[in-house]
Amino acid sequence: MSSFDALVLALRKLPGVGPKSSTRMAFHLLQHDREAAHQIAQALDAAMRDVRHCQRCNTFTEAEVCDTCLDPQRNAAQLCVVETPADQAAVERTGSYQGLYFVLMGRLSPLDGIGPRDIGLDRLFERAADGEVREVIVATNFTAEGEATAHVLAEGLKSRGLKVTRLARGVPVGSELEYVDLGTIAHALVDRR
Amino acid sequence: MSSFDALVLALRKLPGVGPKSSTRMAFHLLQHDREAAHQIAQALDAAMRDVRHCQRCNTFTEAEVCDTCLDPQRNAAQLCVVETPADQAAVERTGSYQGLYFVLMGRLSPLDGIGPRDIGLDRLFERAADGEVREVIVATNFTAEGEATAHVLAEGLKSRGLKVTRLARGVPVGSELEYVDLGTIAHALVDRR
Repeated sequence: MSSFDALVLALRKLPGVGPKSSTRMAFHLLQHDREAAHQIAQALDAAMRDVRHCQRCNTFTEAEVCDTCLDPQRNAAQLCVVETPADQAAVERTGSYQGLYFVLMGRLSPLDGIGPRDIGLDRLFERAADGEVREVIVATNFTAEGEATAHVLAEGLKSRGLKVTRLARGVPVGSELEYVDLGTIAHALVDRR
Repeated sequence: MSSFDALVLALRKLPGVGPKSSTRMAFHLLQHDREAAHQIAQALDAAMRDVRHCQRCNTFTEAEVCDTCLDPQRNAAQLCVVETPADQAAVERTGSYQGLYFVLMGRLSPLDGIGPRDIGLDRLFERAADGEVREVIVATNFTAEGEATAHVLAEGLKSRGLKVTRLARGVPVGSELEYVDLGTIAHALVDRR
């Protein structure tokens, strides 16, 4: 196989990149930006070498323990469980949460063969039982798999005597009822305050 | 900057990849496919090292002269000029062209400051004047820039005594007239046969 074909094939391993885009990417880099190609190659190798999981919250970090977990300003009595670092970033952007995190790096998905061990639930239970955590806020996604994960998490955490809460379900800010799906409105009615 | 941020920034240099997809790509590789990340890095370095331009037709190749140019079965009296290797591949897939190619690796685009020198028109004129080429088939795209390029090409080639033809414009195969744009139908009327 030629180096060009090998490159097109390798680029297809990027999520969301099919045969057409990978060919376009290869042409673009070869014709217009060989410097960028070397930068990407170096950045890939460096990230795979440097990036590991935080020993406390399981998110990506380059240290043993990430900056958030080390921050003495954060409230160690609250632990927010999210599926991915991207979800964690979304919660952080709100600026309205001062506690710590645990990042599952996945969700339960029995159909895909992803069980409690694959997403490290034991590590979460251990982390939550450090004696400082009082409340675990389950912020997995509101998808079928995220809800199933939340259910399993809540069972395990409650049996260890922890207070478990879930993000509120309701009508998104700025939306008009007419265009909100029925399930969401039903939940918002049940959870009204 | 962390290795992770550096990776997200580097991946944005791929065409069609914005901040959201580059973050998703970085997460995916770190979490699920570190092997693929190394493969991509190696493929990038190998392709940038190995892939060069064919001395005769200017397409990408790993040899001095590409396989197509070296093929004695091809008709050296016909030269098809295309904008990119992808266009060349499209013509090849038809299986109805047996001549040789010249790949411009671009198009004239005065608004972007891309003039005749940037797309190597001199090299094309030299290639076409090898004494074997009888007909140059201009297969640049039917966009404003492709048409302008075709015009400049045709002028230069005709002044060197070569026969210059252009791909026929007309109604695409399998289409219904009702849904074909007016410009295409007008051209198909003028070029009727």
